[in-house]
Amino acid sequence: MARTTGSDGERTEAAIREAAVALIARLGFEAMSMRQLAAEVGVQPAALYRYFPTKEELLYALMCTHMDGLIASWGEARPAEGSDNGSPAGQLAAFVENHIRFHLARRASTHVNNLELRSLSDARLAHVLALRTAYEGELRAILRAGAATGDFAVADVTLTAMAIIQMITGVIVWFRPDERLSEDQVAATYHTMTMRLVGYAGPTPGSGRAGD
Amino acid sequence: MARTTGSDGERTEAAIREAAVALIARLGFEAMSMRQLAAEVGVQPAALYRYFPTKEELLYALMCTHMDGLIASWGEARPAEGSDNGSPAGQLAAFVENHIRFHLARRASTHVNNLELRSLSDARLAHVLALRTAYEGELRAILRAGAATGDFAVADVTLTAMAIIQMITGVIVWFRPDERLSEDQVAATYHTMTMRLVGYAGPTPGSGRAGD
Repeated sequence: MARTTGSDGERTEAAIREAAVALIARLGFEAMSMRQLAAEVGVQPAALYRYFPTKEELLYALMCTHMDGLIASWGEARPAEGSDNGSPAGQLAAFVENHIRFHLARRASTHVNNLELRSLSDARLAHVLALRTAYEGELRAILRAGAATGDFAVADVTLTAMAIIQMITGVIVWFRPDERLSEDQVAATYHTMTMRLVGYAGPTPGSGRAGD
Repeated sequence: MARTTGSDGERTEAAIREAAVALIARLGFEAMSMRQLAAEVGVQPAALYRYFPTKEELLYALMCTHMDGLIASWGEARPAEGSDNGSPAGQLAAFVENHIRFHLARRASTHVNNLELRSLSDARLAHVLALRTAYEGELRAILRAGAATGDFAVADVTLTAMAIIQMITGVIVWFRPDERLSEDQVAATYHTMTMRLVGYAGPTPGSGRAGD
């Protein structure tokens, strides 16, 4: 996502980030050198270090941006309480759809975030994991709300949240939309599976897309 | 799993494999050097190359052993057709339980197999992926059989199989048994979620363990 507006510095930083995500997803973080990255962007290696003093700081910045973006996208997608889709089932449908669409649009970045955690130092790892915990906490809150109203039958909120996250993130790793199914069809199928997983037997929430 | 029987050569190879799985899971394949591995095993670097001529051949051997073991374990765990658990629901319950127990017992090896595929050359990657396809084909066959008998309501066999594999492999990556739940409880919860996911409404198959 190289920007076409902004200062030269902003454009260079955006180009570095974009090239880094692609290279790390393809080669792995440990295997990628800053020299390769500089060649890919078309700058001198020294220029990279002005933006990211160490290779780890680059990785950390990419991961924080990904997680901050995911949390912000859910903040925008979340149905307001009291709205048509404000029920636990409506919230869950919106969560699954937003999660799938966000990650399908950021496949390489998703790989980087899933595969390269071990290259972060402890403090940075803790921050990225805290962002994950905050995001997954939103899902746990929806499951707990649905269990409280009796809409969902969830024996173990933590395990169920983990199962849903793994299931709906996994589609990004292994599935290529447009080979056989469209993004809408994939989102709809995963919505159906999620609703079954939580034992929801009520009407399909009116997301306009995710029903089957 | 260092062996205590077998020739010196077999013991050395087993020690190399065991140390390599642990090191790769911790550091990543690209970051691990053969020199580090030799030091860990307590042999000269040259000795490693007698067993594994290249670092990639070592990785490939580890991955093939993991997948061959997984396929063999399912071959042993699979309920015979016509037996009490020979129904699609019984087969699915056995598949989920075997998958979870196999991977929980091989956490580091599971990490290596999930995270390091990109370090294989094309022909080796194709072989490992073919083993995965064969294994996942067993699950797809169970889902198709259950859809045919009407036991399962599965809209898309491929997506559902992928969702189940991701969900039940994910538990190994993120969950630590014995922190809060035992391995049996984890297997039982995932069994329940899987049965819901496939729309199974019949009696719990008599696995003696996986019911709720």
